[in-house]
Amino acid sequence: MLIPTLREMPSDAQVISHALMLRAGYVRQVSAGIYSYLPLANRTIEKFKTIMRQEFDKIGAVEMLAPALLTADLWRESGRYETYGEDLYKLKNRDKSDFILGPTHEETMTMLVRDAVKSYKQLPLNLYQIQPKYRDEKRPRNGLLRTREFIMKDGYSFHTNYEDLDVTYEDYRKAYEAIFTRAGLDFKGIIGDGGAMGGKDSQEFMAITPDRTDLDHWLVLDKSIASIEEIPAETLEEIKTELSSWLVSGEDTVAYSSESNYAANLEMATNEYKPSTKVVAQEEIARVETPNCKSIDDVAAFLQVEEGQTVKTLLFIADNEPVVALLVGNDQVNDVKLKNYLAADFLEPATESEAEQVFGAHFGSLGPVNLPENVRIIADRKVADVANAVVGANEDGFHLTGVNPERDFKAEYVDIREVKEGEISPDGQGVLKFARGIEIGHIFKLGTRYSDSMGATVLDENGRAVPMVMGSYGIGVSRILSAVIEQHARIFVNKTPKGDFRYAWGINFPKELAPFDVHLITVNVKDEEAQALTDRIEADLFAKGYDVLTDDRNERVGSKFSDSDLIGLPIRVTVGKKASEGIIEVKIKASGDTIEVNAENLIETLEILTKETN
Amino acid sequence: MLIPTLREMPSDAQVISHALMLRAGYVRQVSAGIYSYLPLANRTIEKFKTIMRQEFDKIGAVEMLAPALLTADLWRESGRYETYGEDLYKLKNRDKSDFILGPTHEETMTMLVRDAVKSYKQLPLNLYQIQPKYRDEKRPRNGLLRTREFIMKDGYSFHTNYEDLDVTYEDYRKAYEAIFTRAGLDFKGIIGDGGAMGGKDSQEFMAITPDRTDLDHWLVLDKSIASIEEIPAETLEEIKTELSSWLVSGEDTVAYSSESNYAANLEMATNEYKPSTKVVAQEEIARVETPNCKSIDDVAAFLQVEEGQTVKTLLFIADNEPVVALLVGNDQVNDVKLKNYLAADFLEPATESEAEQVFGAHFGSLGPVNLPENVRIIADRKVADVANAVVGANEDGFHLTGVNPERDFKAEYVDIREVKEGEISPDGQGVLKFARGIEIGHIFKLGTRYSDSMGATVLDENGRAVPMVMGSYGIGVSRILSAVIEQHARIFVNKTPKGDFRYAWGINFPKELAPFDVHLITVNVKDEEAQALTDRIEADLFAKGYDVLTDDRNERVGSKFSDSDLIGLPIRVTVGKKASEGIIEVKIKASGDTIEVNAENLIETLEILTKETN
Repeated sequence: MLIPTLREMPSDAQVISHALMLRAGYVRQVSAGIYSYLPLANRTIEKFKTIMRQEFDKIGAVEMLAPALLTADLWRESGRYETYGEDLYKLKNRDKSDFILGPTHEETMTMLVRDAVKSYKQLPLNLYQIQPKYRDEKRPRNGLLRTREFIMKDGYSFHTNYEDLDVTYEDYRKAYEAIFTRAGLDFKGIIGDGGAMGGKDSQEFMAITPDRTDLDHWLVLDKSIASIEEIPAETLEEIKTELSSWLVSGEDTVAYSSESNYAANLEMATNEYKPSTKVVAQEEIARVETPNCKSIDDVAAFLQVEEGQTVKTLLFIADNEPVVALLVGNDQVNDVKLKNYLAADFLEPATESEAEQVFGAHFGSLGPVNLPENVRIIADRKVADVANAVVGANEDGFHLTGVNPERDFKAEYVDIREVKEGEISPDGQGVLKFARGIEIGHIFKLGTRYSDSMGATVLDENGRAVPMVMGSYGIGVSRILSAVIEQHARIFVNKTPKGDFRYAWGINFPKELAPFDVHLITVNVKDEEAQALTDRIEADLFAKGYDVLTDDRNERVGSKFSDSDLIGLPIRVTVGKKASEGIIEVKIKASGDTIEVNAENLIETLEILTKETN
Repeated sequence: MLIPTLREMPSDAQVISHALMLRAGYVRQVSAGIYSYLPLANRTIEKFKTIMRQEFDKIGAVEMLAPALLTADLWRESGRYETYGEDLYKLKNRDKSDFILGPTHEETMTMLVRDAVKSYKQLPLNLYQIQPKYRDEKRPRNGLLRTREFIMKDGYSFHTNYEDLDVTYEDYRKAYEAIFTRAGLDFKGIIGDGGAMGGKDSQEFMAITPDRTDLDHWLVLDKSIASIEEIPAETLEEIKTELSSWLVSGEDTVAYSSESNYAANLEMATNEYKPSTKVVAQEEIARVETPNCKSIDDVAAFLQVEEGQTVKTLLFIADNEPVVALLVGNDQVNDVKLKNYLAADFLEPATESEAEQVFGAHFGSLGPVNLPENVRIIADRKVADVANAVVGANEDGFHLTGVNPERDFKAEYVDIREVKEGEISPDGQGVLKFARGIEIGHIFKLGTRYSDSMGATVLDENGRAVPMVMGSYGIGVSRILSAVIEQHARIFVNKTPKGDFRYAWGINFPKELAPFDVHLITVNVKDEEAQALTDRIEADLFAKGYDVLTDDRNERVGSKFSDSDLIGLPIRVTVGKKASEGIIEVKIKASGDTIEVNAENLIETLEILTKETN
């Protein structure tokens, strides 16, 4: 085996999964964003592939393999050759023809099915492949999380109509849940950005990055340590500093319910909203001077009102048109929601001079009252509930009080605010919690985007040519390795016989993705009796279907154990001093429990123990 | 499933494997030399991968996965970036750095091991991967035999010394034999060209292309036809024409023994040679006029001697020096043997004017007698046995008779002739036969070619840095699909109830590589009883570990059967008219035998039948 473990954490890694993959000898970088998967990583990936294949078999998805080197002509047909951007690797062959390295395979699959399928009777088709993909990332980083060559499972389904697509899409949703669950991942299926039209057309699967402050999650205590409280304050402080020094993985913030299975990207997340039923007497508008009040907090303090009594006025330029956005107090606008509501291609905050043109005033004094009629006002739905609000007067240094929606300005009321942690989940069950997530899967209703542009039609029941309706389904296979290590990295805490506390990083692989089931260690390889026992145990385990990694190197036992902690197999079996009595030590990685058993009872013991830990 | 079978042989295919892979729906071309492996091909490839992995596990080879997109810097280190030639795909990334698509991975693996391994204690290492490779072939052709993107298994071993390499090399040799045998391939392990220094440093594995005239091989007769003799002469003639119309696959001619396991590329092949013990009185040299005699045949006829009494004189330029080659009669010189013997980098036949400078005569009258002393003469070993030979007189229009080797000229005697079919195998066992072969594997002792240029050293037992000794081991995985179909393509001959003879192409997949074990066909999918029986059979077979392809399409039974013949699964189970009685038909593809069995006895029957056919 080639398992080049490192003594120290590599200095160039910023996230813990990257650091541990290098340190435990799972991967090596060949060039920026391009990795070799060493034998351990390869085994984990193969195990994950097996899980995927088993689950895809159940939903009638069929594996095939398209090439990675694709003629540019294919991508010209779909129009993506010109529009995909700089991430696309382009090259020429010896005849000076244009080629690309496939980042995805919609075109290739559409061509294949277009040429092979003529009738609705041959549909649905549900094809997938597992293959290296290429994306020339500007800034590859964080190990396998953002790479230029990565392994992806990409699937494409072809249908006569959308109803049929819906069935396959739902099959995939369930298959993905089954796959990620079996892989031991903590994940959320979330409404993705692509789900603008009702959230049913796209779903992302996010592996949740553990909270850096959750010591119960991170620490695995040796059996000699009863609880975290026993760890000296200084050591604990060191551990906390160490934990917080690692960057939190994951590009996206996920908002999820503490109780239900509601989850969404922060950009798409909403919360429960119940219109106010409170009846408040409407005051008259009054113009008040608010010198030097630039923020909502300034105004609220100066006028001695609750922040929730104020309404903030923002200006955006959406597709070249000014659009006013209103929010209560310090609520933050969520650009994506606003952009999706406006169905705008382009949205950005206005400059101060653009604001002056619309409002006749500068930032800090903008308000919705008496705006030109052609200016569209989008108010967050909560604004409707603010009676006698404080708003900018559209006159620098002045605000209006006693402003009432509908009476004093007209607006479109929609959800455009960013949710906050602790708010009620939109389904009314539990409160919203935030976490960072790593995107590991994405299912997407493509519709006829590619069949239209590439002329992929079938004859329907009436002999009429209709474009095939397509779905696409991706899983980032190499990312899975990062995600699983991110979630299963641990700090193992020991107490030395002298009572000193030591801690070290390692992995705690879930059984289904561990490169091997058992790490079998001979303490002294020169002890023939111990070596013979090791060989026998290895053969027994192998016969029972266990994958065994045997460490029979002529090395110090300390370095064998520390390699074993790093590598992170679920079970460690040590053939040590009591080998002559047939006694071996079994350690369950996840719990830190260690027991001595007679070698003859090992298989039996493992069967009981693995049942407990999984 | 996506199995787009074609009614006709595709017109653009020249070899039978290519034609059948397209027609039976195994592959589709995306662009010249670049293919998609459809579900059937993918299954065969996966089955072959499983065989490889099992056999490599046994010899301690460990799987990993390197990237395909490689920084040019790696190849600059070995020097191959400049020397590899136009077959190398080169590209630039967004930062304008040079990259290549890996055609092989010596550099990548050497870098990996160089950086990870420091001591002899960590060796040997034996790593392999299965991966798409890239070679920008000038003229891609013949389906998967010569492609620009192809799947390869490439392995690399690292050792402290050559003795250790020898052990691994021998392990691989045996593993390759086991793999190709299990895959049902007719192959020869041959001495490759790289084996110049004794033939031990390189071995090629060639899949033998069947003889186009061997009807016993090609025809599978339906049980209604007793023997080939029964086929009408006209039909048989048609079949022979059809067979001979397909190009013979394979780049190389293999010479092999009819009885022993001797086999070599034609360039390397030799035959048994026993020096003549006949004692013949030596005549005097005589100069005779041989007007208009240009060839050996002309001279032999004119002088009324056996062709074996003549010695042909050729001139070559080897690394800028003239070298004379002598052969008996019409024996052909084998350039590779001559070049290897001379250890020349460059060898080519001399021009007539070069010949005139050396011999003072023109082609047709050259001879070895009285040549300048500095001209090296290499005689085929058979020349030593020709007493009183006829040779050119080095005077246009004249020959010498009564010439005797050693007395009349000095030469180095070595084997430089091309062997002929029917000659005795060099081991004395059997006669040489020729066949065309497809290279499917190659094992090679690299030595320190890469470790020297890339500085990959380890510290040996004495703490001295020594370059690692390497071996490389390749299998052309996608080629295997071509090779197996080339060998297992068949013409299935039927007799209609009216007595007409029909024939059609199909595949007869060996069990271990067949995409599925059983083709299960319901004749009438609208017959509910038959459909229920089909479902039950499918479930039973699946439970017993059979891979089943069920054809439940609403199609004519004729087209189902012809698709089944094309696809070529080992067993066909038909649920037809007797479904209501629980009777089904089982057909063994390889033998053409068809039997009726009760559905309940199917598994049992298959167990007996598959034992017989394998």
